[in-house]
Amino acid sequence: MTSRMRSEIAEQPDALRATLGALRPRVDEVRALGGRARQLLFIARGTSDNAAVYGRYLVEAYAGRPAGLAAPSIATTYRRRMDLDGVLAVALSQSGRTEEIVETLAWAKDCGAGTVAITNGGPSSPLAEVADLALCTEAGEEKAVPATKTYTTQLAALAVLGLGLGAEVDAGDLDRVPDAVEALIDAPGDLDAVVDGLAGVAGVVVSGRGMAFSTALELALKLKEACYLHAMGLSYADLLHGPIAVVDRDTPAILVAAGSGPTLPGTVALAGRVRGAGAAAYGVGGGGALAEASTACLNGPDLPEWVAPMGLIVPGQLLTEALARRLGIDPDSPRGLNKITQTD
Amino acid sequence: MTSRMRSEIAEQPDALRATLGALRPRVDEVRALGGRARQLLFIARGTSDNAAVYGRYLVEAYAGRPAGLAAPSIATTYRRRMDLDGVLAVALSQSGRTEEIVETLAWAKDCGAGTVAITNGGPSSPLAEVADLALCTEAGEEKAVPATKTYTTQLAALAVLGLGLGAEVDAGDLDRVPDAVEALIDAPGDLDAVVDGLAGVAGVVVSGRGMAFSTALELALKLKEACYLHAMGLSYADLLHGPIAVVDRDTPAILVAAGSGPTLPGTVALAGRVRGAGAAAYGVGGGGALAEASTACLNGPDLPEWVAPMGLIVPGQLLTEALARRLGIDPDSPRGLNKITQTD
Repeated sequence: MTSRMRSEIAEQPDALRATLGALRPRVDEVRALGGRARQLLFIARGTSDNAAVYGRYLVEAYAGRPAGLAAPSIATTYRRRMDLDGVLAVALSQSGRTEEIVETLAWAKDCGAGTVAITNGGPSSPLAEVADLALCTEAGEEKAVPATKTYTTQLAALAVLGLGLGAEVDAGDLDRVPDAVEALIDAPGDLDAVVDGLAGVAGVVVSGRGMAFSTALELALKLKEACYLHAMGLSYADLLHGPIAVVDRDTPAILVAAGSGPTLPGTVALAGRVRGAGAAAYGVGGGGALAEASTACLNGPDLPEWVAPMGLIVPGQLLTEALARRLGIDPDSPRGLNKITQTD
Repeated sequence: MTSRMRSEIAEQPDALRATLGALRPRVDEVRALGGRARQLLFIARGTSDNAAVYGRYLVEAYAGRPAGLAAPSIATTYRRRMDLDGVLAVALSQSGRTEEIVETLAWAKDCGAGTVAITNGGPSSPLAEVADLALCTEAGEEKAVPATKTYTTQLAALAVLGLGLGAEVDAGDLDRVPDAVEALIDAPGDLDAVVDGLAGVAGVVVSGRGMAFSTALELALKLKEACYLHAMGLSYADLLHGPIAVVDRDTPAILVAAGSGPTLPGTVALAGRVRGAGAAAYGVGGGGALAEASTACLNGPDLPEWVAPMGLIVPGQLLTEALARRLGIDPDSPRGLNKITQTD
């Protein structure tokens, strides 16, 4: 029997086509609201927070504007006001109903920020209603607890946001994304080898850098929530500042990189260092160079670095789903989790 | 035989006295440089990054100014310029010699930011030389690889920074910190019970919120680097968005909170939820309420929330050192790590 998660992974090419079709015509609205913002502030939790990390690197590396992630407790627990004039606040929530996120976006607006909602909950969701501008993803209903298509369509909405903020990229690259995702679903690479390699371990380190850091964090979260693995998502540099000590024969590393871009050489070198420590290094993407340096490799998309994360997570989603089933876990309903998480 | 790490933990009261003595007279210099900054940008890796998280919450929650953590790869790998006029960039490095951090602070200066260095490497270290203002900690030489006294003295420097930025606190609270740390070294609470509880597990979740989040991250890092534990440092809210699934009989949680402050009730409630999932919940600090809700508890300092992190990490340092020895690891020299980490 096929899991809901597996079906929803397969729905991503259509979800991306629908979302890009709906949001690309709205680049001018983004430009009108945020074109002069001196800074971006992303507000999110969980999977949406990982999407926000993509947004942050996109805005900084490609649009040259400072961007950061909000600490929601400043708004909801400390209830501290500050001057956010000139800031564009962008909140992401799959459901558009996580109270903490809605409250933090309302706080940002109250502090003077322009506000954008990115949600699959539709224009009448509480989050969309708070925002000056709502970019609604068209993922359709998502039933499995581990988010897949709502995540990749959030990335698509963030790519559109980046265009509105003047990212120096070729907008036409977006046209290639749905087909590239489809190709990965058909041919994700050596999935069996990586499932075999992870089936017996208690923990794994997942690392990526720059634009691929978001993918590393998201894959680590998927492996935690659906496979109960102690999966640590870390940037390449943070890994070397301490946690590299945990990598050993029983703790492999998964290394993620786009097929091109300035972070690829460091990721390939890290694979060598991990294997030198006696651990397996599983590559995701990174083209031939990372595949060659890895114990086994999942394919990445044939896409430029700035849109690659929409494809890079896909083999990781397939890995998570397959590994959960191998471990006897229902990937659609991991223990302890609900589809809408309420935090305060 | 006593480890270097254990000796250096015990040196913290004196290191804090010396650092506070040297830096408190310099509040006016901080005010002159950063008093009108509209935003703070912290630059750090590893343990210093955890200190930066304290600085971020202190500046946001108590001084009401937006603050965030830099992504160094934007400077060093993407080499992207942006407008940082009006930003105060604060770089932290124990040695003052980590090239990535020096380069990123130089980049921030070049982009128009005011610059502060917080380092134990002295005024002639490369990081101090780049900065407009160097706040040098007086921890003395630190030989054990897991940083202890250089971390708590970084927090002290950040507290002084917060005063210069107008944090609405009683500066006199700082006078109480060294003695409170000394008291914790003498009486850290039920260390044996927590060491026993962690000696057989592969992973642990460490959680805290707001001002205590930095302590959770730092304790998780210590347990990773010196005990090879799969320790995940997570905010209370991020934990509930997925990773709570990993908490079970074999994966306890360590929950950290100051003895007062708005995040304490949520932390106490989380202890109940963790125990409800069949897992052990070890408290650190949190006063009587957290102790009562926990399986076993380490003591926290008798300090107001804004300075509590300087004490809160101390029982966690003692725990790390004792657990490493129990596991047959030399805490002074964990595998794979050097004292000065070079990343690019």
